[in-house]
Amino acid sequence: MAFTFQINDDVNWNHDEKLLKKAEENLPEIIETTVVPVAIADVVADQKGANGYVAKISDKNITKLADYTLGRDESIVLDLGDHYVGHFTLAINSVGSPMDAPLYLQLKFAEVPAEIAAKSSDYDGWLSKSWIQEEYIHLDVLPATLSLPRRYSCRYIELKVIDTSPKWKASFSQPVFTAESSVSMNQLAPYEIDDPELKDIYNVSVKTLLDCMQTVFEDGPKRDRRLWIGDLRLQALANYATFGDLALTKRCLYLFGGMTTEEGKVPANVFTAPELIPDDTFLFEYSIFFAAILADYYYETKDLEVLKDLYPMAKKQMDLAMKLVDDEGRLNLLEEWPAFIDWSNEFEKDTAGQGTMIYALRRFIIIAKVMEETAIETYERVLADMIHFSREVLFDTKEQQFIVEKNHEINVASQVWMVLAEVFDQEKNSEIMTTTVATQFPITGIATPYMYHHVVEALFLAGLKEEAIILMKNYWGKMIDLGADTFWEAFKPEEPDFSPYGSPIMSSYCHAWSCTPAYLIKKYL
Amino acid sequence: MAFTFQINDDVNWNHDEKLLKKAEENLPEIIETTVVPVAIADVVADQKGANGYVAKISDKNITKLADYTLGRDESIVLDLGDHYVGHFTLAINSVGSPMDAPLYLQLKFAEVPAEIAAKSSDYDGWLSKSWIQEEYIHLDVLPATLSLPRRYSCRYIELKVIDTSPKWKASFSQPVFTAESSVSMNQLAPYEIDDPELKDIYNVSVKTLLDCMQTVFEDGPKRDRRLWIGDLRLQALANYATFGDLALTKRCLYLFGGMTTEEGKVPANVFTAPELIPDDTFLFEYSIFFAAILADYYYETKDLEVLKDLYPMAKKQMDLAMKLVDDEGRLNLLEEWPAFIDWSNEFEKDTAGQGTMIYALRRFIIIAKVMEETAIETYERVLADMIHFSREVLFDTKEQQFIVEKNHEINVASQVWMVLAEVFDQEKNSEIMTTTVATQFPITGIATPYMYHHVVEALFLAGLKEEAIILMKNYWGKMIDLGADTFWEAFKPEEPDFSPYGSPIMSSYCHAWSCTPAYLIKKYL
Repeated sequence: MAFTFQINDDVNWNHDEKLLKKAEENLPEIIETTVVPVAIADVVADQKGANGYVAKISDKNITKLADYTLGRDESIVLDLGDHYVGHFTLAINSVGSPMDAPLYLQLKFAEVPAEIAAKSSDYDGWLSKSWIQEEYIHLDVLPATLSLPRRYSCRYIELKVIDTSPKWKASFSQPVFTAESSVSMNQLAPYEIDDPELKDIYNVSVKTLLDCMQTVFEDGPKRDRRLWIGDLRLQALANYATFGDLALTKRCLYLFGGMTTEEGKVPANVFTAPELIPDDTFLFEYSIFFAAILADYYYETKDLEVLKDLYPMAKKQMDLAMKLVDDEGRLNLLEEWPAFIDWSNEFEKDTAGQGTMIYALRRFIIIAKVMEETAIETYERVLADMIHFSREVLFDTKEQQFIVEKNHEINVASQVWMVLAEVFDQEKNSEIMTTTVATQFPITGIATPYMYHHVVEALFLAGLKEEAIILMKNYWGKMIDLGADTFWEAFKPEEPDFSPYGSPIMSSYCHAWSCTPAYLIKKYL
Repeated sequence: MAFTFQINDDVNWNHDEKLLKKAEENLPEIIETTVVPVAIADVVADQKGANGYVAKISDKNITKLADYTLGRDESIVLDLGDHYVGHFTLAINSVGSPMDAPLYLQLKFAEVPAEIAAKSSDYDGWLSKSWIQEEYIHLDVLPATLSLPRRYSCRYIELKVIDTSPKWKASFSQPVFTAESSVSMNQLAPYEIDDPELKDIYNVSVKTLLDCMQTVFEDGPKRDRRLWIGDLRLQALANYATFGDLALTKRCLYLFGGMTTEEGKVPANVFTAPELIPDDTFLFEYSIFFAAILADYYYETKDLEVLKDLYPMAKKQMDLAMKLVDDEGRLNLLEEWPAFIDWSNEFEKDTAGQGTMIYALRRFIIIAKVMEETAIETYERVLADMIHFSREVLFDTKEQQFIVEKNHEINVASQVWMVLAEVFDQEKNSEIMTTTVATQFPITGIATPYMYHHVVEALFLAGLKEEAIILMKNYWGKMIDLGADTFWEAFKPEEPDFSPYGSPIMSSYCHAWSCTPAYLIKKYL
């Protein structure tokens, strides 16, 4: 998640200290793993790689790193062999005459080779330049051990000497990357997949999830580095299917449940430093997905304590959302509480939004029944109204597709969310998705694995298993073909060089909402 | 000192631990003084200022600093009110929506306003870019107190926000500069000077010296930051006349005496971190000036212990130098042991070099007598030979000027050093300097206060007091007119924008060898 921009500076927040205390009690220990670079790499332009670059193993031998002394404008790229999240240390010495000037060093941390090739100064987008993973460091005295205080998300590390002096050069040794996650690959039960493509997709999904599991489920360890509801829902599902770290999910649920607006709305995301802070951003389906995440969690754990603690907030989201549903069963979205659905604003989102509400309401009703909700009929009636309206008004029987009421637009997202919402039975859903595949595939104009995930799940749910597998291979598999060690925040198969921010140095190449193939494969195959 | 470049990687060094222990015993306590900015400044192009820029007091009020929140590409310049050397801390907060990206901040420390205006990326000279006093800092979490670990030499501090995010801005408060020196202005005895120009020159000299007095006499606290013999000699003289911190001079003498080559030569400069390291640079008159500095120290202190400890090294320098003096009394300089005299290589230095040797030999003989040197006649004979050769061969009686033997060149440096060496009596010296003033003033082509110091002292010594005062005012006074808070490493009155490195960001505007007017005024006025 990242691409949304709201400022709501007049919001008053409730902090429920009892719930937030439970969030803190479930703060995980971070597991550290020592990683040393496996090679020195040369980054070269090549359309076979992400954003037009690949890393080749250099003629230089990583075991002789200290011998490759570097002077002004000379650089070397270390390859960790895989994508990791953590801290970097390096020993540095001077070679030659006594060190008669400071060492001025630039370090660049890159998830993909294209980031090494990109010039930071060329980036001028609206997302903050502060996300670019580079540091400029002066060292007045050598030898020294450089221990960078910040966390990075990377596979490649460029060491570039801006200057030494003409009398000496810099020598680097003992590069160590301490990888961090709240889970370990050792927690993963063996899982056999015969199809080699799906096996690769599964493995990369799991690595993506692991790197995003820190003290919260982060959206991207390189950029945003924080807990969004949209990512959390998918990460939690993938986590149940793999690492099964229930404490982290519980912690994240409590973080959202513990910080709500005066009217009870959960924020789209929260910050955890310097203290627990809710963001002033609100997205319609993210709010109601709080109920879905709680229902999923209860389904996995049967943990009544968590359910009881957080049910009131889940109910509140549904109640707030239901105020937007009119007597006909039509969801009327508000400008200040928009549905996200996908980054793209090229299609109308009302029908997809209606689908997300039905989807969430179904899950809420399950936990409402567990909680012996007295007003259960209200929710069931709204659900019935919304389904009725969707079938009668939003479904075009001639086209066998859902439309957007105001302009009769037919788009992929509407079909997908109405299928996921199970507005019709599986047979009808199968017809809808078959029509969608026939008329709208190959998909264009959708940039996020988040939306692609929902397309694939809708295909599975509608029984179009083969089409679902093909789409997974064409989408996530294509990222692997381009060198992905972890799956990306954004990818358009029809435009492989697409970067939503105009430069690969701003893109996140390890992004939580792309980790779902592990869940999809385990659930549907 | 700075502008010399030698690599001698085959030198073997003796470390005399007994002497180096005495150097460490005289390591001074650094005195810290808290300085807060007095204003916010606007840097504007104006030929009235150093290198074409001045700082004007901004409309913004320093007491409201925290109110001036800064977003992408916005900056503010703090003015400390005077030049200082030390460490900087700053409180930083975010204002607006929750901090959804790191803060990326650039800090630039400038001795003169022109450094703020200069772009670092435009500098491409041979001196290391690592000297540019700027830092790029990421802060992941605000509020924070930024305590920069490095030491800076500056009056102006630019805070430039490279980026926040569109949702919040950075706010700065509590800027504190902790100024450092081994001496304090409180140690300075009151000293009345009626002439306001000379008073200003005296005060700026003293400030220059104070800022260069750290754990050694540094050449420049911004750039080089280390102990050179050439600067030490002048700093010690200015120090005797002002702060009178004898321990630091003693320490520096022991540092040079404790680290000599196998043949006994002292290096031109030494490093003190990460350990005591002699540089592999050798300059002829710097070596023999070790004897002059020791003689000056003994003259000031009558400290026989230091004299006895270091006399052998002083003698060694003279012995090595005397090997270059032929039977006629002619100094024959070697390429690997060049005379410095001045940065300029536009004039021949042999005659000036001959002068430095006579100057040093005279001072050595004084301490040799104290030490009851048995070979005293040898030194006295060489001195006589060199004086004889200088008078008979190097002096052009028609021109009343010293020439360079090989090409009959007449230059300022030759006259100055022969006068300082007292090759003739004062009457004759007066004639020589009068001729020099008449034929070669205003001086052109000399860039260093180091050489200008020797010109002024030669004028005083020759009895040309008025000319000496005029030259002091035209040289050091002109720097003050251009806004100098401390005196500079390099200055050509005939070319005020001259920068020896092509950019003001590389120049040192507080440089030890320019601090001598305090000594000259006290000694000769």
